Amino acid sequence: MSGLLYDVIHRRRDVRGEFTGEPLADGVLEKVLTAAHAAPSVGLSQPWDFVVIRDRAVRADFHRHVHEEREVFASTLTGEAAEKFARIKIDGILESTLSIVVTYDPERGGPAVLGRHAIADAGLYSVCLAVQNLWLAATAEELGVGWVSFYREEFLRKLLGIPERIRPVAWLCLGPVSRLQDVPDLERHGWRERRPLAAALHQDRW
Amino acid sequence: MSGLLYDVIHRRRDVRGEFTGEPLADGVLEKVLTAAHAAPSVGLSQPWDFVVIRDRAVRADFHRHVHEEREVFASTLTGEAAEKFARIKIDGILESTLSIVVTYDPERGGPAVLGRHAIADAGLYSVCLAVQNLWLAATAEELGVGWVSFYREEFLRKLLGIPERIRPVAWLCLGPVSRLQDVPDLERHGWRERRPLAAALHQDRW
Repeated sequence: MSGLLYDVIHRRRDVRGEFTGEPLADGVLEKVLTAAHAAPSVGLSQPWDFVVIRDRAVRADFHRHVHEEREVFASTLTGEAAEKFARIKIDGILESTLSIVVTYDPERGGPAVLGRHAIADAGLYSVCLAVQNLWLAATAEELGVGWVSFYREEFLRKLLGIPERIRPVAWLCLGPVSRLQDVPDLERHGWRERRPLAAALHQDRW
Repeated sequence: MSGLLYDVIHRRRDVRGEFTGEPLADGVLEKVLTAAHAAPSVGLSQPWDFVVIRDRAVRADFHRHVHEEREVFASTLTGEAAEKFARIKIDGILESTLSIVVTYDPERGGPAVLGRHAIADAGLYSVCLAVQNLWLAATAEELGVGWVSFYREEFLRKLLGIPERIRPVAWLCLGPVSRLQDVPDLERHGWRERRPLAAALHQDRW
């Protein structure tokens, strides 16, 4: 049985160019969000929220901002890196079926969140665990997910009317795809290679 | 096939009291770490490392520190919360088979990490995605995982000889368990209840 989980974990991709825009089958979005919501969280604080965005005007505004930020990053590159980056697609905001913004509420479960007194970021970590559950569930449902991170949090907060205390953590494009690539986009385009696991392993001490 | 993933996602628990200390079957630790290492990461930076800790002296030192931090948190509680917390076990450091510390290297893949120029924490988020892959893989292998967060990062950095630029993100206890609880510990002990998904959902705007 564990083999099926590994298959999903290794097939999962960060999708940019393969979204078809087709509608989701009935009930699938709820299953994927229920999986996200079943993530572990520090002190059982469940500090996440999910904003499901279908509105094309909202997505178009975000897309415009993302492409301004693309230029900000591009302007820091020269030579080969600039050439490689020019070929890399960074989002599928307009082509995907919908987007999901995942947020963090530091006051949820407070003031005394069990397990967070020494590590303020522990609540933020919980939100990311929910994102990965969502991503794997979507992959198992034959959907693609693409995490877009070329944006300023303040822009996104204003765009969606997110309260000041809430932090947007992820903009995820979601939907049916023509295929999942075998090799991650950034590796295929020669931006970076995958690192062998052995290079990341330490025994007993660093 | 997706049903098996959901089963793992919903069976997964944050384990404290059910570790047996039995050895892992051959090859299982590598499968679980390979799953973690297959997580998505901003700019394909793969900014994580894994320190596998079997040394009992290291674990005993950490356990002592965690219980000092338990007292720090307990001293902030009064009344019913203090009584509930007194009954809650916060770690299985000594009873579990081994521990894995997961860290974050902000310089990995730098200086220009694709997708991180506007969101400095995006690399930290990647590390958490690896943790959730590890957690689900361990659950599928019938192992328990318990994330311990009652510690100061500086203490852990010194204990393991972690370089200054590297940030410890998680201490995970891992190993065979007598069972996984049906209900999360903190809910069973009346610390907090699970929130309905509907309360976390927003459409198009917050």
